[in-house]
Amino acid sequence: MRVLGIDPGLTRCGVGVVDVRPDRSATLVHLGVVRSPVDAPVAERLVVIARGIRAVLAEHAPDVVAVERVFAQQNRSTVMGTAQAAGIALLVAAEAGLPTATHTPSEVKAAITGYGSAEKLQVQTMVARVLRLDELPKPADAADALALALCHAWRGAPSVPARGEALTPAQRAWAEAEKRAGSRGAVAR
Amino acid sequence: MRVLGIDPGLTRCGVGVVDVRPDRSATLVHLGVVRSPVDAPVAERLVVIARGIRAVLAEHAPDVVAVERVFAQQNRSTVMGTAQAAGIALLVAAEAGLPTATHTPSEVKAAITGYGSAEKLQVQTMVARVLRLDELPKPADAADALALALCHAWRGAPSVPARGEALTPAQRAWAEAEKRAGSRGAVAR
Repeated sequence: MRVLGIDPGLTRCGVGVVDVRPDRSATLVHLGVVRSPVDAPVAERLVVIARGIRAVLAEHAPDVVAVERVFAQQNRSTVMGTAQAAGIALLVAAEAGLPTATHTPSEVKAAITGYGSAEKLQVQTMVARVLRLDELPKPADAADALALALCHAWRGAPSVPARGEALTPAQRAWAEAEKRAGSRGAVAR
Repeated sequence: MRVLGIDPGLTRCGVGVVDVRPDRSATLVHLGVVRSPVDAPVAERLVVIARGIRAVLAEHAPDVVAVERVFAQQNRSTVMGTAQAAGIALLVAAEAGLPTATHTPSEVKAAITGYGSAEKLQVQTMVARVLRLDELPKPADAADALALALCHAWRGAPSVPARGEALTPAQRAWAEAEKRAGSRGAVAR
């Protein structure tokens, strides 16, 4: 399954595409940022964002699009623009005939690190490990889009292999990383 | 000048089209509501709203589109959906090559009644008078879209006739209504 994750923003919209197999192992396909000029009128900025997301859809043909759910409680000064960018992302995906989903930041953190209040660096470290990257995903502020895409693929997918099946290398790495994250999570709580 | 005013909402999106002449007199062209089903996923609802607004653009060919500006402070439970609907409205208008503008509810009330804290009924009464309607605009919750369209046309338009020119009937009605609204406004403040 190919998933496009979108971390919405009016100035910077993170986009991450991953291929996720039934055993939960995943490969990085694309990571980038759709930018819009801060000094342009809002309507023009939304047009630029829509165009950028359509380009990603055309180039990478995801099966599903996951968008981070925005709450009114988050960062007040930019939350309206973020909500609008999220709306554009959902519209563009649905108009392309793709299924969409939204996930909260807590859901993403919980899916990736095992607990919902993980720090950004922990999430990025885990994403890099799962995707077998030599370094943290760059640009850093787009890494959330990858985490979102992985989160979407994994929710609903079985987290334990069927009885009698051996763990794949990806599952082993995952289980080990989950153990570490879990213990750090207990400390952080 | 033909103006489409949009009062954004995820469930009901008010759309009002008016023709406004240089002397500030105005005619009602269209008033309606673009609805989306409350039980559908957000992405589908946004698609329905985009389709509805595109239909209004195609049918009434406005010169400019004015959208109510949404603030994070407003009604918490629906504000994210309202912001997304506003974003869709701006996107659809800009993608159709039309200029867009946003106005706050206070700006609209001030432009229509003379003061920014006017009540809904006063705004509707004034809109009906300006458009020479026999009754208040219906549906009532779409009347804000008309007020928004009038507000946009009038801001930037001269509010006083050029020296030596007589007042048109519309301007006379306007001046009288402004006087009444102004005195009530002073009481309300």
